[in-house]
Amino acid sequence: MENLSTSLADLESGWVWLAGAGPGDPGLLTMQAWHGLRQADVVVYDALVGEGVLALARTGCVLESAGKRGGKPSPKQADISHRLIQLAREGKRVLRLKGGDPFVFGRGGEEALALVRAGVPFRIVPGVSSGIGGLAYAGIPVTHREVNSAVTFITGHDMTGDVPGGLDWAALARGAPVIVIYMALAHLPQIAARLLSHGRAPAEPVAIVSKASLPEQKVIESTLAACASDALAQAAEPPCLVVVGEVVRLRAGLDWLGALSGRVLEPDPLGGRQGREVG
Amino acid sequence: MENLSTSLADLESGWVWLAGAGPGDPGLLTMQAWHGLRQADVVVYDALVGEGVLALARTGCVLESAGKRGGKPSPKQADISHRLIQLAREGKRVLRLKGGDPFVFGRGGEEALALVRAGVPFRIVPGVSSGIGGLAYAGIPVTHREVNSAVTFITGHDMTGDVPGGLDWAALARGAPVIVIYMALAHLPQIAARLLSHGRAPAEPVAIVSKASLPEQKVIESTLAACASDALAQAAEPPCLVVVGEVVRLRAGLDWLGALSGRVLEPDPLGGRQGREVG
Repeated sequence: MENLSTSLADLESGWVWLAGAGPGDPGLLTMQAWHGLRQADVVVYDALVGEGVLALARTGCVLESAGKRGGKPSPKQADISHRLIQLAREGKRVLRLKGGDPFVFGRGGEEALALVRAGVPFRIVPGVSSGIGGLAYAGIPVTHREVNSAVTFITGHDMTGDVPGGLDWAALARGAPVIVIYMALAHLPQIAARLLSHGRAPAEPVAIVSKASLPEQKVIESTLAACASDALAQAAEPPCLVVVGEVVRLRAGLDWLGALSGRVLEPDPLGGRQGREVG
Repeated sequence: MENLSTSLADLESGWVWLAGAGPGDPGLLTMQAWHGLRQADVVVYDALVGEGVLALARTGCVLESAGKRGGKPSPKQADISHRLIQLAREGKRVLRLKGGDPFVFGRGGEEALALVRAGVPFRIVPGVSSGIGGLAYAGIPVTHREVNSAVTFITGHDMTGDVPGGLDWAALARGAPVIVIYMALAHLPQIAARLLSHGRAPAEPVAIVSKASLPEQKVIESTLAACASDALAQAAEPPCLVVVGEVVRLRAGLDWLGALSGRVLEPDPLGGRQGREVG
């Protein structure tokens, strides 16, 4: 670690770090989060944090699941915050580890404010967000200069577990040429229908990426019209990211992970067509 | 490194890794990118990659700047791709290091496709995107459950160096309650004017974050109406991220970096108000 370790912050007794674990591949963990794993007395982790990441915790570290998954409302959020406060007050070095990034649909802000109210000191350790890094493992860039200069990230369910309310779907559909939906599987039929009803093309490319960046990663390429039935027919397993837009076509050229297994990449995956720029 | 090093991929001779360096703080480098820095013969880096990150390269590694900065068009993109191909064909282990994430306004896809055309094998190493991790160092979450279930990322200039054309600014303004603009400084007056003319409130909170996550980080809190003049008056230095939306108010409670220097955090920064959910 040499000169890096001197620049890394140390996780101290009575502190909580709210850290992102990235999409799943342990190699996408940040140095700072890794340093936290090597120092923590307790790691309180979400279901989306992979075993490969947890295996990096120091010997003797207690691993506590705070797991919740899928579209269900989460009566336990207050319990999780309470537990973090309790552990910190016991003088533990607490690493709160979330999939992806704690500030991207991760409720990091809520937990941090609970710590502020309790007077517990904390640090935010950003992570690689799954909607960016996970899609990169599927060979899909969320932006590409010929295709889009804007991208929108949406969560597939809101605080009640439903499709997010209060959003202007007409504006979202017209706004960014690329839309990435987190935790998209449960409400994919409704979400695709809304985008279609507000003018996105039925033939628009869609990719459904299950267990992104993990060895079990599976990618379904589809269209906006067919994605919900394709997800069902091919038994897509959560967690899933869904990306809507012409960038999906780039996968034919950029699937570097597939190339490691022999896939021949296409040098011109957009086929000379100009990418779709909404406007 | 123990059990992690066995799971990290090795950078091999004749390969190019297109890697993200994160917002600037070396602690936000991923393990995989760090591993690449320890193995590379040549690092071809952008201007936005910090010295603290480059200092982690192995002794004897050649550091080559491919720098370009600000809103200028980039006639050199083809030259950069050509150089990567040349180095790979010389049998070098090449780490192409970009600020943030290579697939978020980073032209990683373009460079990768050039490698595909040349038959050069490559790997994508995602990084912490500055618009997420950099803002976290300013205490600003890009999503917060009471405020937004969608966020849009926009680049402040397109391939010509102008404000991105072809975007439906009316839809973008109405679509996501939070908008993050990368490389926003040069065209901030025009961008703010477009959002205002399409209905965003003049008093809407805006933060301008200069040199995010670096020791020189500076945050200007403003409003949509005043941000362009405030950036000028306070001599904001590029690179700057700009974030528009109610999440900016959370900084009063979540500025953990400020708290390290004695700032007292507010436990209820949204003041009991419901966050703005556009719709």
